[in-house]
Amino acid sequence: MVRQNNIVIIGGTACGPKAAARARRCDPAAKITIVEQGEDLSTATCGLPYYVSGVIENEDHMVARRPDYFEIVMDMEVLIRTRALSIDRKAHTVTVLDLETDRPSTIEYDKLVLATGSTPAIPDMEGADLEGIFTLTGIKDANDIRSFIPNLETREITIVGAGLIGLEMAEAFVTHGLKVTVLEALDWVLPTLLDFDVAAHVEKHLRDKGVKLLFGQRVTGFRGDGKGRVRQVITGNTEIETGLVLLSLGVRPDVSLARDAGLTIGSTGGISVNQNLQTSDPDIYAGGDCVENVNLITRQAILAPMGSTANKHGRIIGTNVTGGRETFPGVLGTAIVKVFDYNVGRVGLNESQAQEAGCDTVISLVPSNEHATYYPGNREFLVKLIAEKATGKLLGGQMAGPGDTAKRIDVLAAAITLGATVDDLANLDLAYAPPYNSAMDPLHNAANVIRNKLSGYARTITPLEVKNKLEKGDRFILLDVRSPQEWNENRIEAEQSRLLPLPELRKRLGELPRDEEIVIICRTGVRAYLAQRILDGAGFKNVTVMDGSIAAWPYDILGVL
Amino acid sequence: MVRQNNIVIIGGTACGPKAAARARRCDPAAKITIVEQGEDLSTATCGLPYYVSGVIENEDHMVARRPDYFEIVMDMEVLIRTRALSIDRKAHTVTVLDLETDRPSTIEYDKLVLATGSTPAIPDMEGADLEGIFTLTGIKDANDIRSFIPNLETREITIVGAGLIGLEMAEAFVTHGLKVTVLEALDWVLPTLLDFDVAAHVEKHLRDKGVKLLFGQRVTGFRGDGKGRVRQVITGNTEIETGLVLLSLGVRPDVSLARDAGLTIGSTGGISVNQNLQTSDPDIYAGGDCVENVNLITRQAILAPMGSTANKHGRIIGTNVTGGRETFPGVLGTAIVKVFDYNVGRVGLNESQAQEAGCDTVISLVPSNEHATYYPGNREFLVKLIAEKATGKLLGGQMAGPGDTAKRIDVLAAAITLGATVDDLANLDLAYAPPYNSAMDPLHNAANVIRNKLSGYARTITPLEVKNKLEKGDRFILLDVRSPQEWNENRIEAEQSRLLPLPELRKRLGELPRDEEIVIICRTGVRAYLAQRILDGAGFKNVTVMDGSIAAWPYDILGVL
Repeated sequence: MVRQNNIVIIGGTACGPKAAARARRCDPAAKITIVEQGEDLSTATCGLPYYVSGVIENEDHMVARRPDYFEIVMDMEVLIRTRALSIDRKAHTVTVLDLETDRPSTIEYDKLVLATGSTPAIPDMEGADLEGIFTLTGIKDANDIRSFIPNLETREITIVGAGLIGLEMAEAFVTHGLKVTVLEALDWVLPTLLDFDVAAHVEKHLRDKGVKLLFGQRVTGFRGDGKGRVRQVITGNTEIETGLVLLSLGVRPDVSLARDAGLTIGSTGGISVNQNLQTSDPDIYAGGDCVENVNLITRQAILAPMGSTANKHGRIIGTNVTGGRETFPGVLGTAIVKVFDYNVGRVGLNESQAQEAGCDTVISLVPSNEHATYYPGNREFLVKLIAEKATGKLLGGQMAGPGDTAKRIDVLAAAITLGATVDDLANLDLAYAPPYNSAMDPLHNAANVIRNKLSGYARTITPLEVKNKLEKGDRFILLDVRSPQEWNENRIEAEQSRLLPLPELRKRLGELPRDEEIVIICRTGVRAYLAQRILDGAGFKNVTVMDGSIAAWPYDILGVL
Repeated sequence: MVRQNNIVIIGGTACGPKAAARARRCDPAAKITIVEQGEDLSTATCGLPYYVSGVIENEDHMVARRPDYFEIVMDMEVLIRTRALSIDRKAHTVTVLDLETDRPSTIEYDKLVLATGSTPAIPDMEGADLEGIFTLTGIKDANDIRSFIPNLETREITIVGAGLIGLEMAEAFVTHGLKVTVLEALDWVLPTLLDFDVAAHVEKHLRDKGVKLLFGQRVTGFRGDGKGRVRQVITGNTEIETGLVLLSLGVRPDVSLARDAGLTIGSTGGISVNQNLQTSDPDIYAGGDCVENVNLITRQAILAPMGSTANKHGRIIGTNVTGGRETFPGVLGTAIVKVFDYNVGRVGLNESQAQEAGCDTVISLVPSNEHATYYPGNREFLVKLIAEKATGKLLGGQMAGPGDTAKRIDVLAAAITLGATVDDLANLDLAYAPPYNSAMDPLHNAANVIRNKLSGYARTITPLEVKNKLEKGDRFILLDVRSPQEWNENRIEAEQSRLLPLPELRKRLGELPRDEEIVIICRTGVRAYLAQRILDGAGFKNVTVMDGSIAAWPYDILGVL
């Protein structure tokens, strides 16, 4: 009789249970043990902000599978409320502690899987143990926050960190009628994910929803109310009254077990694994938030703690611990987040990441429609596309707005993974019917704008550059070629602004000085581009279009003067 | 002075205006003339069914640009109500007829663009000129139908052809409270787009919405009411009372002008063009519905009359007639259509097309969720994925159901275009957050099911094969491993059906005969697959899973007995 394969999996959130289930299906006879320190397996931690907000009503909905499912249906041993203490790699054993009885014991393994996940990053801050200061990693945290809210002594609450969880929780707290201030140490929201030109639109939307945003704020500590409850957040610059604090400063891979066992930890702080998700010990695999991944574009190691990646890891590990040989190619840092009515997504490299990677980039910023504008219910959004200048190869994209960004982020994820250029993207045969798309998808348009730049037809300047020029008082003409009606509704109020509707441009060319810089705008850039080509044709030499025009301008229209 | 480039474009719906606009932007000085026999340019013919239904309220919304926009803003000459009669290739002239004055004239060209579109396919049928028989190609048709409806003498109306327009119009007519019968010569709805196993779900939904479907019905003629109005549709099999007939039998490329000029017409009936969209005369370009395209997978010529393709053609032609050199790679036959509450999409090859192309295929049929099931508002849909057996290379996909199929069709379009395999698809870093997706996207799952089949872990049989076996009275066990509650709610009523809930399977293996064929089902296939692996592990030799299980079973549950 063949010896039964003995697989031990540490961690029961996403990668662990997936690895276990896959291993069971690959090897119906294997002995499989899952060790989990909490009470549940397969908890949907990504849904926690929506459970706090009340959108998800019942906490039971957050648990996909109860432990007895794994025991009875999957024929596994499940040790909940059990903590793995140490690994003896030579003896192929794990020492675990039963948190109920406080008794240690030893488990043997042939193959060990580390799916130990991540823990919230919490820098040293005075008063961080005050009541009313939370992180959000499990259902218990969510329940603690939910029961704290009714007893708040002030409606003002604070979120530290404007990352994914921070923004999701901002919406959750506003749903409860609270007044939210978000403190961010860097200079814009989602700072590691988005470039400023897209983030500025998300900020505007957050402010429209009543969220206060403070940037460059590094929290140094907290002060209590004398009864052990948090009352103030202290930053280098200011003190903020608060009734509750949520710390959402990102997560760190939980690698203590791996490190203590002498496994290689990468420069990012995650467990180092090869393409088969094997650690430096070939009998130990690791996946999920605790490992580092390869960025598919830069080929560099990055942390990418995502439930989606954890599940893919789990399947590959389940295959490989049962004798298979599958590989995980890497990640693109894809992310999407609902920020009130905006769907904010990103994929690949942003501009600063591309520059760090040594790429010379070309971008487009394209105000877009989710489907045919004549079909009811269209919602708009802004697309930023980034490509390599020399090759036209796609590097990344960012999108924000009420429209369907998720579809375009995913198409872009496929295209970037498979090495597509802007030419490839521009001609993809995407599905078209009026309820679903325009004849030209936003990605087609975004690719074509880059192609127009690469071919020399289009010359552009970003909204931020225009804002800086206006603030510096530069001498140039900001030529608005929209209709007088549009101009009366909203415009960039600056002495450089000048209205010259496109239909009149050809016959009024004489009014424009040939020796001055001209920046053309319209609503979305389409008319401005034609105007630029008309001026090009008439021999003007210093003409550009502002990327995305008025629809891509996130700044207070009247505020620049 | 450089001689002005003289560009003449025949056809003003989609490809023509796009080519004109692009040419203008590429060459601000070119002379550009558009010849259009109708009254408008850039009409959104794809939106017509929604204008008939009333979803689009105003016909003005259907016209993107008025002729004066092209004249004044684009600086072109626009000849509406003007028909192109003939081309003199040697003289580089086109003879046109002013339909208002009935006067012919001659226009010179350097580059000529044929964007002559398509016309409805109407076979020879007796009585086809009766009042109340319509096609739908322009706003006039839509207005004629709208004004005919209030005067109908019966609420029963007939649609001939169950293609894209036929099904969109079925919904439009039902919106008006009419009783719709759809006649289709082939054996299922969208017969050239979908395989039967997906089409059967669309049919079920149409029947649930009150639409009557009759297949294998070739219409031979119509009978009137004696006052010139249609009253009966005659097929080989039957006569159907009707108050209105919509003929939606597809379209044929309009190539008469090209053929008369001696240009090469392809075997599909479309104008033959090279990758630069040049016809057999290098000074004449053609694009849109009137040309044939290359299928990116088979490399064979196909007709693909789509507004999306016409727009891409237009841009390329606009570039190339002004001295550029862009290429159009080809199409995937991508299509999407709203059929009441179902979003029905397809891309690439369907199974019969793949077989015609000589591919040995492997498929998956996966009931899917559009996003995390614990996040409110999830809608389901069915995914069919098709890959090449030897290589795992993606060939096509079809999806139907209330859920967001459009996103997955587009991701698949990108993946297929760029040569992806099921392995590539399974590991794409797609955007995940609970409002947008599950941790594993439906495409990941569909790819993994195919991988499970290719690796030998999963063995399946299609719902249609099971239905045929049941109807033949084959001896086998249809093992339902769902819960007793689920079994009581709905089940496949057959003497072969047997309930054995998955949690009890391991201990009740002795109840199953080892010498008999066993087909396992559950709700979506996940539990059935585990059950198959349990039986595999226990040494059973003749076990399969029904692809997609109950959720992929479109047949009347009680009807098979």
